[in-house]
Amino acid sequence: MSELDINLPSTRQVQGSIKDKIEVSVKLMTGDVFAGRIVWQDPDCLFFTDANDLKTLIYRHAIAYIQYQ
Amino acid sequence: MSELDINLPSTRQVQGSIKDKIEVSVKLMTGDVFAGRIVWQDPDCLFFTDANDLKTLIYRHAIAYIQYQ
Amino acid sequence: MSELDINLPSTRQVQGSIKDKIEVSVKLMTGDVFAGRIVWQDPDCLFFTDANDLKTLIYRHAIAYIQYQ
Amino acid sequence: MSELDINLPSTRQVQGSIKDKIEVSVKLMTGDVFAGRIVWQDPDCLFFTDANDLKTLIYRHAIAYIQYQ
Amino acid sequence: MSELDINLPSTRQVQGSIKDKIEVSVKLMTGDVFAGRIVWQDPDCLFFTDANDLKTLIYRHAIAYIQYQ
Amino acid sequence: MSELDINLPSTRQVQGSIKDKIEVSVKLMTGDVFAGRIVWQDPDCLFFTDANDLKTLIYRHAIAYIQYQ
Repeated sequence: MSELDINLPSTRQVQGSIKDKIEVSVKLMTGDVFAGRIVWQDPDCLFFTDANDLKTLIYRHAIAYIQYQ
Repeated sequence: MSELDINLPSTRQVQGSIKDKIEVSVKLMTGDVFAGRIVWQDPDCLFFTDANDLKTLIYRHAIAYIQYQ
Repeated sequence: MSELDINLPSTRQVQGSIKDKIEVSVKLMTGDVFAGRIVWQDPDCLFFTDANDLKTLIYRHAIAYIQYQ
Repeated sequence: MSELDINLPSTRQVQGSIKDKIEVSVKLMTGDVFAGRIVWQDPDCLFFTDANDLKTLIYRHAIAYIQYQ
Repeated sequence: MSELDINLPSTRQVQGSIKDKIEVSVKLMTGDVFAGRIVWQDPDCLFFTDANDLKTLIYRHAIAYIQYQ
Repeated sequence: MSELDINLPSTRQVQGSIKDKIEVSVKLMTGDVFAGRIVWQDPDCLFFTDANDLKTLIYRHAIAYIQYQ
């Protein structure tokens, strides 16, 4: 299993927002913006949920940035 | 054969939607959106079918996200 | 030689359309759409021909999806 | 842990702007431009803060360039 | 030195057009189109010249396709 | 340290323009065009300066092509 490198500051940054259920917004290379919470992460994707409980599997290669309110 | 890492949560998430024939929508980096079912997946692609039985081989690198209705 | 993984379902899917000379359309990340036949494939590219016998070497990284009529 | 290659001139260039708290602007492939300071970097991301203390985790693959005022 | 895989059909296709000084057009992911000749290729780039002898180092990752007149 | 492959023709092409302080223009995938000189290169980036001495760290993955006047 390609491992998630939990020692990477960026992985820990995302893991912290998962653990503490922090609201974030995720901007994609397509221009889409997701507002809500990251539920889990793995080496390829983030699993995201929003206020309407809409579930989205976001591919990391499509992410431009993650912003902390 | 470059293996699909079935232990990855994101791989299992897609595999679950294949097994249970769940309707999903797939948004590509081009802006295209596919509504229908994922038939199978491999390390490079998803094979997709829609209500009109139109078959599409989607390259993973072109996928922005997969959304669960 | 970086090998084409002929065991991958997606490689076999393309190889089948080459062998059976199936008409496909290939949508690129640029928005270009090619209608015609895939002549051969290798790990980096697809070689494509259309009704006017116009030959195009398409880079895999530029492909969004391949659609089967 | 995939290591940040601190011997690379580009890594050292960014590390210098972090250490000396230099104002930079970061242009992304999406067209977004961030003006502010890089707080830390790792192999996948830059962590960025601006004048309003808005924190942003920017993915390296989305960065076009970094400009020094 | 990361080697150019001369056994790949796509590498040989480009090498043939270099040897025989064949006019091609190269479409990039940016929408730019270059009409002229490929002078040489390596694993990262194609070196291109046009009718006005304008020299361009094109990065492979930016190429969508190469078309043969 | 991931090495710059100085035996690659494309690396030598850029190194030559650095050594001889040749004016070039660099077109990015974002559509940005930089006119000026490449100061140094490494496996990830080019460091660029223009007539106003504005310094820019350009990421290689964002470069479409480099043109020689």
